[in-house]
Amino acid sequence: MTIGSFYPPQRTLMGPGPSDIYPQVLQALSRPTIGHLDPLFIGMMDELKQLLQYAFQTQNTFTIAVSAPGSAGMEACFVNLVEPGDKVIVCRNGVFGDRMRENVERCGGVAVMVDNNWGEPVDPTLVAQTLESHPDAKIVAFVHAETSTGALSDAQAIAKLAREHDCLTIVDAVTSLGGVPLLVDEWQLDAVYSGSQKCLSCVPGLSPLTFSEKAVAKIQRRQVPVQSWFLDQSLVLGYWSGEGKRSYHHTAPVNSLYALHEALVLLQNEGLENAWKRHKDAHLELREGLEQLGIEFVVDEAHRLPQLNAVYIPDGIDDAEVRKTLLERYNLEIGAGLGALAGKAWRIGLMGYAARSENVALCLRALETTLK
Amino acid sequence: MTIGSFYPPQRTLMGPGPSDIYPQVLQALSRPTIGHLDPLFIGMMDELKQLLQYAFQTQNTFTIAVSAPGSAGMEACFVNLVEPGDKVIVCRNGVFGDRMRENVERCGGVAVMVDNNWGEPVDPTLVAQTLESHPDAKIVAFVHAETSTGALSDAQAIAKLAREHDCLTIVDAVTSLGGVPLLVDEWQLDAVYSGSQKCLSCVPGLSPLTFSEKAVAKIQRRQVPVQSWFLDQSLVLGYWSGEGKRSYHHTAPVNSLYALHEALVLLQNEGLENAWKRHKDAHLELREGLEQLGIEFVVDEAHRLPQLNAVYIPDGIDDAEVRKTLLERYNLEIGAGLGALAGKAWRIGLMGYAARSENVALCLRALETTLK
Repeated sequence: MTIGSFYPPQRTLMGPGPSDIYPQVLQALSRPTIGHLDPLFIGMMDELKQLLQYAFQTQNTFTIAVSAPGSAGMEACFVNLVEPGDKVIVCRNGVFGDRMRENVERCGGVAVMVDNNWGEPVDPTLVAQTLESHPDAKIVAFVHAETSTGALSDAQAIAKLAREHDCLTIVDAVTSLGGVPLLVDEWQLDAVYSGSQKCLSCVPGLSPLTFSEKAVAKIQRRQVPVQSWFLDQSLVLGYWSGEGKRSYHHTAPVNSLYALHEALVLLQNEGLENAWKRHKDAHLELREGLEQLGIEFVVDEAHRLPQLNAVYIPDGIDDAEVRKTLLERYNLEIGAGLGALAGKAWRIGLMGYAARSENVALCLRALETTLK
Repeated sequence: MTIGSFYPPQRTLMGPGPSDIYPQVLQALSRPTIGHLDPLFIGMMDELKQLLQYAFQTQNTFTIAVSAPGSAGMEACFVNLVEPGDKVIVCRNGVFGDRMRENVERCGGVAVMVDNNWGEPVDPTLVAQTLESHPDAKIVAFVHAETSTGALSDAQAIAKLAREHDCLTIVDAVTSLGGVPLLVDEWQLDAVYSGSQKCLSCVPGLSPLTFSEKAVAKIQRRQVPVQSWFLDQSLVLGYWSGEGKRSYHHTAPVNSLYALHEALVLLQNEGLENAWKRHKDAHLELREGLEQLGIEFVVDEAHRLPQLNAVYIPDGIDDAEVRKTLLERYNLEIGAGLGALAGKAWRIGLMGYAARSENVALCLRALETTLK
């Protein structure tokens, strides 16, 4: 049997990611591949580092993109920073906090959980109490913007508590980077990872990552080698260093990095504040329309992510049937619920290039017609 | 300071990879992104699995592409198959055998090394002797086609010895897949990984991977969880299974998978035997021209890889200067030596789309002019 070329349809992507990709990013993606040690490619990587520093609002020298998806970015933080026996306070208010626990345990660390209900932000008071009762904790890990629920946590407050107890922070910024304020240096966050396919509107497969000097120092003090060769950041740093001589580690995903460079150039040209405002504006438009349809949000207004709107499926509505109609009739993708919210909620993404009035209008009209 | 878009030049890539990309693959890469749980995308992944089975010449159900480069594919084999305390016989005749040792040790395994000189194939007699003296060994790991030296080892013979001693095999086929015969089922190889950016002429960033039933059974018998969450193939399998319901693991690199699908469609249309012959023919053309220039091969004729030609740099020639001229004047990339061959050899790749007479002609003429 002979298999032919694959021609995907043109969807509008308003799920939890991948988000709609900027046309310019798809163009950049298909530019001619050059060698990963070509001087012109190395120059591009140096620019990419600067663009990532801008996006993260950091001066951290260690600011790169992991050559794999966000879940590998998460793992890069844990395998490098957690040593066997290290106690890590892990905040869990959705799927990704639990994945952090898995990571801690697979590194031989001890996870102490701080639990909040799905849809709620992490409660800093609980974090403070847990730090008090575990004075030997080394790290506090939490999700800034929970993709499974749409809740935004107060990264600045949690990081301040962690510092007061001499703990480093590991922060999941997969869905927050580019969509809401994330100020790595001002908030003194130590290890922050993200994904290319959310509010940056780049193709999936890369994980932006930044480590503070304190995080790098902990890695350098390690007694036990990092359990992953691929994610050992002491090796990767030699590859990303702009100091002329570049040591070979792995073959960079050349074309995907072109795409990330282009997405970050677009973010730089728009300006971070404008991008945050655009996400907020699109969210307010969507909220108004959803409220008119009688649809309710999972998360309290004060902690709602503009770029990820988790809403309850109205009573008597067939979840899968609605999403199928949206996809097949309107070429519109919205996200299903995940984990505790599976079958109970939809997740409507307004990420990056998707955060535009035309998408909000399409989504509201298509939902209204389908729900009738 | 404002950073602009990046426009790479059109190079001819004749190094150790990435190789020249098929134009059709770059086109496929930039097709519209769709969701990674979209039914049409799931259908594409099912086709991709069949195409990979053809390329690997296997019926293995577990045949996927790891969402990260070849070095992550290598790690996926070791973290899943090596349990703490397992003894692994590792054949080392170049850079990548040594990386295998690193992987074994980081998994808590015990590596027993079988060493051959750089440029030589793995010696099956040495493997047999080592198996005799280590009856408790569980796995034999070796590189089929050493990218650092251009030597081809006898995978069939080594795998037969391993089976006779009840050992599984882990095989690095990064540079062999699509370029020389690799018959996973006929040779009864157990865990085989490759890279997208070599003889498949796809963009870098993905690692084709196949596990035999015996390999899957060893994973299922594990007492200790796999140390990597991202590379835990018992989780990944749920994501790639074609059984309708797909469990979320990570966000697939959607566009890169379009590209791999297209590269494998091209391989299917050409036919594996024809692709092997095309690599061989291009190699013979190149060899004739190099011999006329008085340039000598690192590897004996009997074990030479057609797709990766390691040759000694002639006496009195400035390595870096020649490669710079080729790159800047001819937009032609050839590879530097790696490890023990750094500064002593060049690596001229004829991989995938690059294995064509026009490339051989360009390379020979440009080298001749530059070396004068």
